[in-house]
Amino acid sequence: MDLTHSTQEALDRIRATVGTAGWIEGEARAPYLREWRGLFQGRAAAVVAPASTGEVSAVMALCHQAGIGVVPQSGNTGLCGGAAPDASGTQIILSLRRMRQIRDVDVTNDTLTAEAGCILADVQHAATDADRLFPLSLAAEGSCMLGGNLGTNAGGTNVLRYGNARDLCLGLEVVLADGRVWNGLSGLRKDNSRYDLKDLFIGSEGTLGIITAAVLRLYPRPRQVQTALLALPSPEATVALLPALREAGGDTLTACELMSRTSLTMALKHVPGCRDPFDAPHPWYLLVELSTPQAGDALRDALQACLEREMEQDRVVDGVVAESLDQAQALWRLRESIPEGQTREGASIKHDVSVAVSRIPAFLAEATARVEAALPGVRVCPFGHIGDGNIHFNLSQPEGANPDAFRAQWDDCNRVVHDVVAAMGGSIAAEHGVGQLKVAELERLKDPVELALMRQIKAALDPTGIMNPGKVVR
Amino acid sequence: MDLTHSTQEALDRIRATVGTAGWIEGEARAPYLREWRGLFQGRAAAVVAPASTGEVSAVMALCHQAGIGVVPQSGNTGLCGGAAPDASGTQIILSLRRMRQIRDVDVTNDTLTAEAGCILADVQHAATDADRLFPLSLAAEGSCMLGGNLGTNAGGTNVLRYGNARDLCLGLEVVLADGRVWNGLSGLRKDNSRYDLKDLFIGSEGTLGIITAAVLRLYPRPRQVQTALLALPSPEATVALLPALREAGGDTLTACELMSRTSLTMALKHVPGCRDPFDAPHPWYLLVELSTPQAGDALRDALQACLEREMEQDRVVDGVVAESLDQAQALWRLRESIPEGQTREGASIKHDVSVAVSRIPAFLAEATARVEAALPGVRVCPFGHIGDGNIHFNLSQPEGANPDAFRAQWDDCNRVVHDVVAAMGGSIAAEHGVGQLKVAELERLKDPVELALMRQIKAALDPTGIMNPGKVVR
Repeated sequence: MDLTHSTQEALDRIRATVGTAGWIEGEARAPYLREWRGLFQGRAAAVVAPASTGEVSAVMALCHQAGIGVVPQSGNTGLCGGAAPDASGTQIILSLRRMRQIRDVDVTNDTLTAEAGCILADVQHAATDADRLFPLSLAAEGSCMLGGNLGTNAGGTNVLRYGNARDLCLGLEVVLADGRVWNGLSGLRKDNSRYDLKDLFIGSEGTLGIITAAVLRLYPRPRQVQTALLALPSPEATVALLPALREAGGDTLTACELMSRTSLTMALKHVPGCRDPFDAPHPWYLLVELSTPQAGDALRDALQACLEREMEQDRVVDGVVAESLDQAQALWRLRESIPEGQTREGASIKHDVSVAVSRIPAFLAEATARVEAALPGVRVCPFGHIGDGNIHFNLSQPEGANPDAFRAQWDDCNRVVHDVVAAMGGSIAAEHGVGQLKVAELERLKDPVELALMRQIKAALDPTGIMNPGKVVR
Repeated sequence: MDLTHSTQEALDRIRATVGTAGWIEGEARAPYLREWRGLFQGRAAAVVAPASTGEVSAVMALCHQAGIGVVPQSGNTGLCGGAAPDASGTQIILSLRRMRQIRDVDVTNDTLTAEAGCILADVQHAATDADRLFPLSLAAEGSCMLGGNLGTNAGGTNVLRYGNARDLCLGLEVVLADGRVWNGLSGLRKDNSRYDLKDLFIGSEGTLGIITAAVLRLYPRPRQVQTALLALPSPEATVALLPALREAGGDTLTACELMSRTSLTMALKHVPGCRDPFDAPHPWYLLVELSTPQAGDALRDALQACLEREMEQDRVVDGVVAESLDQAQALWRLRESIPEGQTREGASIKHDVSVAVSRIPAFLAEATARVEAALPGVRVCPFGHIGDGNIHFNLSQPEGANPDAFRAQWDDCNRVVHDVVAAMGGSIAAEHGVGQLKVAELERLKDPVELALMRQIKAALDPTGIMNPGKVVR
């Protein structure tokens, strides 16, 4: 690592800015440099953790002057390497984890203002303490942080009803590439007095600025929750069921998670506590959740009546409705254990893609045929958020095959699946972001006008190219 | 109007591009140049109405080369002069009204793709024909067009449940300043493969590009609708009632419209068919609508139980629940007739502002006190979308005063009200946009960092400054 004199001088001033508590050295740096799946390994000229927006601003101003690349990082749980530095050792990691204050809760306005280093579960708890719901929910919620959730526009299991992270955010505080601070911490539900700057920063993965705080939307807490697992003959039947569920549940339809038998089998086989509620296997399953802040038990009646109708007409093969919170959790456990089950089954190659909901059956058929032809013996384990058109089209290695040999086909396999997605007008980065993992694939597949637009915006907001270099667009 | 030779040459080529049907001349130009309230009067070097995205693209490329300013216009119903050219006579009006095709309806994906010149009501009808709801609804829906709705991120009466225009749009087709076409017509609900370009164009009022088509979200049609008018003692009581309504109605709470007695009086006095459903006058009224695609009559029971509880505890003074569609329409007629009632009562000065919902009572008290001090005898007639924090803080002239003398105080009065809004962290352009009407006020009140950010983005996407010059930001 060969730092110029001016870089070293800037680092010294950054160190003075953040103080001892904000300057991470030696072994303590390891967790910031480690990407949890081991897919990305970088080096850093420094790891700093400012304690306030003012400190972030001062650090950015110094980096801007010295031309030092900055990799913002919060929970470091991302799946696409967006929070990992490159191998040059010239970039710094700017961790938001010391900025973890809940600044304000306004129950009348149904908003909560929190800093980027708040753990998602802590934000959820703060909402619960105020008798409200913050609906963003995803597997990493115990360790992921708000900054990363917003930086990647995280999805999760409640998108169907509540939207992605951007829909749950009303305003932001952002430190810009040159250290200026944009205070857009508005709790307004209607504001047409500006370009939509908030949504430009959300999902930009730190390439346009650093999100330091956000105003989040709160919702009434559900008082009725009904959870069911349905067995279905095909993806076609599942897609056809959605309108019936929407009519039965109205706006209470909160989650619709599709699982293939193969993916469920791996959870059942490897994860303790997973139990198949049906006597026989079925090719496809749909986990359905309805919830409402209204009191009473109307939801259960509506769901059961709907399922009876659908089963009478053979559109649903079998179904169980949870009788208790424990039973509901057991059903969710099946869905949530799929990634772990897959990991224990051997190597896997993953895709986080979306298409129009109407195209899901065609996508599953086409993509499955293509990868089975390309990788004989591969086990296709799709699951995901069918109501949002978002499928985690994951592939497990052939039984008994060499894991490394399978993993070596990652890029080739990605191209096969992404070509199918692109031909259907879908997205190859549905809810996990682009990071560094998908930059080249986007360059290969995206409309050149769209890439040019992204580069124009990047150049306008980060003219010296120091904001998370090499991520999203380059 | 003194056009240079190169401008004239460009206009000739534009004329050849759009053909006779797209080149508006002589008297036929009048409706494009007329702003319906007479607040803005401009001139134009040409009025053109391309028939396709390709023609819009060709026109923009020619304007870009020749440096001709372009004012996009669709329904020309805006309230802030965003679709009116300046007085120089050097700009052209580009009307989208010939682009009025519904390109696609996908009921399984719950999306509809329509061109910018579609009248909003026609889009609503196309959704209804497919047994779906397109929820955007506002006073001008019979003549306003989709392009303007998205360009201004229109609000309306269903925002509480369904969001603003941006929330109802999944993707756009946009012609850029230099004529390139961005095809972002995605019907995807999850796509993190790009910066959020869609939302950058939505609400930018044609200053960054011209929206030519959009993919819109459809919803299930409501099967139960319950409408009630409540009489309340104060704005405080109204704001306090919202959580109770949300608990009773859950996600079915679709509209919450606040009306002051003064504003209602003007509707009752001047607009035929308006009738006060109560025996005695009350200081404040709340029009509430609940709706759901679920069948049955649970909604009526929930609403009536909630109102009984609130009336028992004297939080609601009186209330009527509509017994029929006719009665529901009669209640809505009261709300919708307020602007006409106000117009017939004499001159008015208008404000389209928003604050956090929790601040509405303080805003109403403070703003009322300030304008009554500044304009003795003024009649304050606030009404609006209280669930969104959006108040149309409108002022009617003192009885018997000279209308022109009152109107002459528009700017001074705006400043008084906007100062109160700004001090409360609110927006002076909540749902009607900025246009040319509010550009100077935004420059006076906005954070300089935010203005600078907007200018950076404007310069990046419209480097020669030909896109709707002088609107939103300059």
